[in-house]
Amino acid sequence: MRYKAEVRVTLKHGVLDPQGATVRSALAALGYEGFEEVRVGKLIELWLEAPSEEAARERVREVGERLLANPVLETFTVQVAPAPAARAPVPGRPAGPGEAGGP
Amino acid sequence: MRYKAEVRVTLKHGVLDPQGATVRSALAALGYEGFEEVRVGKLIELWLEAPSEEAARERVREVGERLLANPVLETFTVQVAPAPAARAPVPGRPAGPGEAGGP
Repeated sequence: MRYKAEVRVTLKHGVLDPQGATVRSALAALGYEGFEEVRVGKLIELWLEAPSEEAARERVREVGERLLANPVLETFTVQVAPAPAARAPVPGRPAGPGEAGGP
Repeated sequence: MRYKAEVRVTLKHGVLDPQGATVRSALAALGYEGFEEVRVGKLIELWLEAPSEEAARERVREVGERLLANPVLETFTVQVAPAPAARAPVPGRPAGPGEAGGP
């Protein structure tokens, strides 16, 4: 069965976030006061085939630890749900993976 | 009142994702088959003061349009919730914004 997994990768509490600090100062420069703190992380969406939802979650957790998140600086969470049918390809663009007619 | 907003920035459907393609080939190189597609986006967490939850959402939506997401390539969603009390500062690290004793 086909599943969609969502991996949220965020910096560990206490790890300084230069990207977040840059966004925060840009907000202030644009006149947006009142933003106390900004943290920037990654949102990784994966479509995969797996025998069950639990198997899919286990697989994504494993690749999270091995590849998607830096264990020293980052933590991550995994959410998995059955994926809707393959998306219709975008006209004029070759069908991508997971799209009807795609590889 | 203090709110925490979460902005999820993802590439529009049909926009090619070189970062996602790189992760996908890295997964295959590590022997993880069955991942049809990978999309990499941004997860931006913001802590802000606002008179109401709706005012906070409106403000974050505005900065999303102006700064956080590229309107040509990306879409974004906003979630807002009352923020827990300022987090306890990490021992040995000067209290950051939004932390008790922080600026």
